[in-house]
Amino acid sequence: MNSYLIVTGGQIDDSFAIRWINEHSFEGMVASDSGMEFYKRAGIKPDMIIGDFDSVKAETLDFFRNKDNIHWIKLNPMKDDTDTEAAIRLAIENGAEDITLLGATGSRIDHMLANIELLGIGLERKIPMQIIDANNRIRMIDSGIVIREAEQFGRYVSLIPYSMEVKNVTLKGFKYTLENYTMHKFNSLGISNEITADEAQISFTDGIMVVVEAAD
Amino acid sequence: MNSYLIVTGGQIDDSFAIRWINEHSFEGMVASDSGMEFYKRAGIKPDMIIGDFDSVKAETLDFFRNKDNIHWIKLNPMKDDTDTEAAIRLAIENGAEDITLLGATGSRIDHMLANIELLGIGLERKIPMQIIDANNRIRMIDSGIVIREAEQFGRYVSLIPYSMEVKNVTLKGFKYTLENYTMHKFNSLGISNEITADEAQISFTDGIMVVVEAAD
Repeated sequence: MNSYLIVTGGQIDDSFAIRWINEHSFEGMVASDSGMEFYKRAGIKPDMIIGDFDSVKAETLDFFRNKDNIHWIKLNPMKDDTDTEAAIRLAIENGAEDITLLGATGSRIDHMLANIELLGIGLERKIPMQIIDANNRIRMIDSGIVIREAEQFGRYVSLIPYSMEVKNVTLKGFKYTLENYTMHKFNSLGISNEITADEAQISFTDGIMVVVEAAD
Repeated sequence: MNSYLIVTGGQIDDSFAIRWINEHSFEGMVASDSGMEFYKRAGIKPDMIIGDFDSVKAETLDFFRNKDNIHWIKLNPMKDDTDTEAAIRLAIENGAEDITLLGATGSRIDHMLANIELLGIGLERKIPMQIIDANNRIRMIDSGIVIREAEQFGRYVSLIPYSMEVKNVTLKGFKYTLENYTMHKFNSLGISNEITADEAQISFTDGIMVVVEAAD
């Protein structure tokens, strides 16, 4: 699997992130603009650096400019889309078969919401994507998935309708089950579910859902 | 205006929140479950306390149980919806004409996303609602609004399509303008706009948008 990591400029819990990276292997490591700061702190050289570089320290730019074998892409700061969107498209052009985003959450909630929107690029291209931070794993799905209890991230599983409705939702192996239930937006019904069996099954016939696995 | 404040159990920057409360006036102050902890720290007595009380300290429960003139509502912990959803419905039943949520953001991203979903309850009832934290003001809109530069919250204004598309979006008074443009989900086009005139106008003919005003 041609797995790509994209580190972008949100908040990062370094010890979590370094542990996570060490436990996984990536064919490509991309820094999106000030995501460079994390790579520098972690002592990891990214394969690609992309951004308009308006939010990274000059010394960090210099630090990586002096390294070999980094593919640089400088974006126009007046562009329409975020550096993270450009980084995702770059990863896909380079053959990414799955993509993990780190540094995609934090105090800029607009950036976080945009990053969740960008999970839809993966959905359109059939490329699994996820946002990870120390407390959450966020995915967007348009068909059923199974989450094995032994592999779940954190304690809770929350389902948030992304399309205005998600039809015929059936949940098995959860504390709160559903059977052919149509979930609508504007409510908190799917929040803080818990897996009670070896594996939990989420299925539905129509719509898009955001799945957040959350620590306490 | 019958303004209500609901404090729920996410992260709160106390100095920001206390300043915010002092600068505004509220007819009703509601604590949603562990939102009680903030009221205790801030030395403010809520008018209503609602929750299943599974995430609040026993001493905080006792502290407020000994106070007069608090309306208590104990929810069943096995309920479908979150305490925050119940708090919003309670505020509306009590005549809230606008609602501000504090403590609605933080490290539990599923809770934050659910709280953004709940802004739709205000949209359906024609009750203005907003989520506030030290760095962000989040609203959901289904028709045009004006943001005066002198009153904006933070430096950036980001527009995130909430419905699958938002039709005929026209932006005036912004650094990046649009004219009768259809915004789709799965991209980051509307992120980090800036107001460049005395007032900025957002208009569209169809759809729902999340507006985030964000500090740097």
